[in-house]
Amino acid sequence: MTPLTTTTTTNPMNSDEFRRQGHMLIDFIADYHSNIEQYPVLSRVKPGYLRQLLPPSAPYEAEPIEEIMKDIQTHIIPGITHWQHPSYFAYFPCSSSTAGILGELLAAGFGVVGFNWEASPAATELETIVMDWFGEMLSLPKPYLFSGGGGGVIMGTTCEAFIVMLVAARDQKLAEIGKDKIGKLVVYCSDQTHCALQKAAKVVGIRPGNVRAVATTRAAAFALSPDSLESAVLADVEMGWVPLFLCATIGTTSTTAVDPLKPLCHVAKEYGMWVHVDAAYGGSACICPEFRHVIDGVEGADSFSLNAHKWFFTTLDCCCLWVKNPDALKRSLSTNPEYLRNQASDSGGVIDYKDWQLTLSRRFRSLKLWMVLRSYGVANLRSFLRGHVAMAKAFEKLVAGDDRFEVVVPRRFAMVCFRMTRTTPSSEGSDDDDDGDEGANNLMNKKLLERVNGSGRVFMTHALVGGIYLLRFAVGSTLTEAEHVMEAWKVIQEHADAIQGDYKHLY
Amino acid sequence: MTPLTTTTTTNPMNSDEFRRQGHMLIDFIADYHSNIEQYPVLSRVKPGYLRQLLPPSAPYEAEPIEEIMKDIQTHIIPGITHWQHPSYFAYFPCSSSTAGILGELLAAGFGVVGFNWEASPAATELETIVMDWFGEMLSLPKPYLFSGGGGGVIMGTTCEAFIVMLVAARDQKLAEIGKDKIGKLVVYCSDQTHCALQKAAKVVGIRPGNVRAVATTRAAAFALSPDSLESAVLADVEMGWVPLFLCATIGTTSTTAVDPLKPLCHVAKEYGMWVHVDAAYGGSACICPEFRHVIDGVEGADSFSLNAHKWFFTTLDCCCLWVKNPDALKRSLSTNPEYLRNQASDSGGVIDYKDWQLTLSRRFRSLKLWMVLRSYGVANLRSFLRGHVAMAKAFEKLVAGDDRFEVVVPRRFAMVCFRMTRTTPSSEGSDDDDDGDEGANNLMNKKLLERVNGSGRVFMTHALVGGIYLLRFAVGSTLTEAEHVMEAWKVIQEHADAIQGDYKHLY
Repeated sequence: MTPLTTTTTTNPMNSDEFRRQGHMLIDFIADYHSNIEQYPVLSRVKPGYLRQLLPPSAPYEAEPIEEIMKDIQTHIIPGITHWQHPSYFAYFPCSSSTAGILGELLAAGFGVVGFNWEASPAATELETIVMDWFGEMLSLPKPYLFSGGGGGVIMGTTCEAFIVMLVAARDQKLAEIGKDKIGKLVVYCSDQTHCALQKAAKVVGIRPGNVRAVATTRAAAFALSPDSLESAVLADVEMGWVPLFLCATIGTTSTTAVDPLKPLCHVAKEYGMWVHVDAAYGGSACICPEFRHVIDGVEGADSFSLNAHKWFFTTLDCCCLWVKNPDALKRSLSTNPEYLRNQASDSGGVIDYKDWQLTLSRRFRSLKLWMVLRSYGVANLRSFLRGHVAMAKAFEKLVAGDDRFEVVVPRRFAMVCFRMTRTTPSSEGSDDDDDGDEGANNLMNKKLLERVNGSGRVFMTHALVGGIYLLRFAVGSTLTEAEHVMEAWKVIQEHADAIQGDYKHLY
Repeated sequence: MTPLTTTTTTNPMNSDEFRRQGHMLIDFIADYHSNIEQYPVLSRVKPGYLRQLLPPSAPYEAEPIEEIMKDIQTHIIPGITHWQHPSYFAYFPCSSSTAGILGELLAAGFGVVGFNWEASPAATELETIVMDWFGEMLSLPKPYLFSGGGGGVIMGTTCEAFIVMLVAARDQKLAEIGKDKIGKLVVYCSDQTHCALQKAAKVVGIRPGNVRAVATTRAAAFALSPDSLESAVLADVEMGWVPLFLCATIGTTSTTAVDPLKPLCHVAKEYGMWVHVDAAYGGSACICPEFRHVIDGVEGADSFSLNAHKWFFTTLDCCCLWVKNPDALKRSLSTNPEYLRNQASDSGGVIDYKDWQLTLSRRFRSLKLWMVLRSYGVANLRSFLRGHVAMAKAFEKLVAGDDRFEVVVPRRFAMVCFRMTRTTPSSEGSDDDDDGDEGANNLMNKKLLERVNGSGRVFMTHALVGGIYLLRFAVGSTLTEAEHVMEAWKVIQEHADAIQGDYKHLY
């Protein structure tokens, strides 16, 4: 149990030293979480701050952990935007938990690389089991589960899932129409679909001009209209383009809009498209029966993904992807070099996840998902999510009760889209606001957001939809309790008062 | 500090509970590392073992951590192939360390998502600093460092680096020759290049038939010959193909061959290709001056990557990629949706790493690399690597001293490629072995490997190069000491004796 010194010859995995430092780190993290409310949510450092604080080169001699942790406290923490802060309401949450963090720790402790079954059978098998468990909790149709001929895989992020799905769909389609026809392929989505889809399409060689972001409207709560999709597809087909892929979203980034799966799948299937359902944010809610309807129609799609690190307590990274036809993935992504050959793989009786994903190496991510499911159980997990939804509802009510504000789109999950209006709040569903007024409203809300975030007491982000600059209040940080929502509203109101002062001449 | 019960309403990030469970987990991992030698290196479970042991569905009520950890001990550990076992000599190591594991823990504890600067300035800035530190330790030419106009980024794996580099190169080339010319592009590598390159090329839309795996020879120790490359390129250019990309490898998977960078870059540059140096395994050694020569010529390439999780104590996943021209990446991979806009990004004065990689979300991986560099320092890190090399040298000597065996290719780093020979060992550099003899030799070595791995006392893997089935003895697991190498050699010899008995009639 001697501390590392500058002349250590201790093995870097020495158990005593690991134990000593590990306990220190656990306490450090526990203290960080206990004290997190003392920090401004949004970091206040200026660009380049850290290079001035750290030496220009790596140390030649070892440094003791105590020194490193001191620097973490004084140099790193001020540069952190505290995603786990209870007053963090920005982007989407990256909801953590004890089980999630410790699952990650355990995976790092085992240090296995489960690219194929043999490289650690438990890593592969636990993943198949947990993905079936989770799929069942979401009431995914049987064909998405291993027990129904499909199956699930854990990736890092939805961006990877997009690339993998596009590659599988692309290769399947090119096998039909000719491998030199890649320039003909068209991908469909809405103007609310996450930008990662456009990027993924570009990565796999689809021309950026061949991604159709079908326009949505406020009247339809920014959901993709099956009729608009069909018109777009028809126009393309007439021009000789080849429909390849539709991405439908359950809980869009800007407003948590829900695309209607059933009629969209109907259109897509008529034109031979692969349908992927991106439920990165909204998917988790489907473990609650009252939310399950948002993915009605998923039986007509080909693949479905959600980010358990967003709103399922599993820490970054944990994108859960289910597919009905794993063979389509394997046809595109399999490799079989001699140096990876082994009896189990040759037998064909095992899953080698390397052939389901972009990368060869993979972390033992199923451990943390398994630990989350077991540590909390379905009952608690539902109640955690319902708690977030209830807090968002309460916030929505506060907004609706203050006539300087309006709720811009109906709340669907645990995020409220709202804004200050200096004009009469525009009626819901109307798309024909006056541009000049909107311009002033938008600027005012931008200023409000800057002030609120600058206070350090709350962090929210914005979106711009249908010409409206709106503030997104996303509840879901694990430590958030009702009091933090109330406090955030107070901060927002205070700054609204100040802003109103600035704009008084207009009222 | 009450344990989780089935009716918990405790917040899943409750600090007391985190502390309690965290200390348990740290002790569990420390004990696992202490006792790791009691487990067979290669797991002995049969396919499907785990589904029989776990319930068919996730629990409805919470389960206590004690229950979960009991299952980890009895159900998960038997299904683990122990990559951190000191007698693990398979594939390449995934070398762990206290600093690496705890860096991962700390990143999970902070739970930040550093896709852009604002989302946690420390995550971005520490990464730029650490990548400059590490680049300097490797004596990478200045243009690869931020301080020299280039820069580094940490990804998950080399597979991602391949995809990113290919996309950047592809888009740059298509901008020159026309965006409909993707079918003309050709990628070059050797028949020893990692299979991930072929997969990456396929992912980005390069036709599988347009990847030229130039043949290597045993005489040239399986390195890519600049002359062979030039012949291949010339033949392609004459046929109207467009050379796009060359991947050179420093430490190939099968035999740790080193491609000669200087003359290869010379050829590639003549034909306008992007050169990527894949030093996934061999790169780390370049922190030792006596190994730095293996990347001489890297100044002529465009990008360079190594896996710090392979042989640099940083735990999966940590692929370090340096590029001379980050703008080429950013041109291909940037996204700028309104919901991610912020003042810092708009100012252009900060790095938003989302535009340097495939995915949007990213873990705080630089923490673990920083902790490894500081906890051990350059001096210890060099001595750890040299220790591995010394053990490999010792093993090589043992092999060379037993006339039933031969070293198949000269050792370069910490891996020995060897085999049993029942015929007179073929002279080094000869490619014209008799096929019948080689077939029998190969079968014998395959049997030897099965027996050795089946013993549970050692885990090695194989490769097939130039028709020769060879055994790879890769030293690099952090816990490996000289005694484990001696013990492994004893196990190999014992099984060689037994095999020799089986083959006695042939001797």
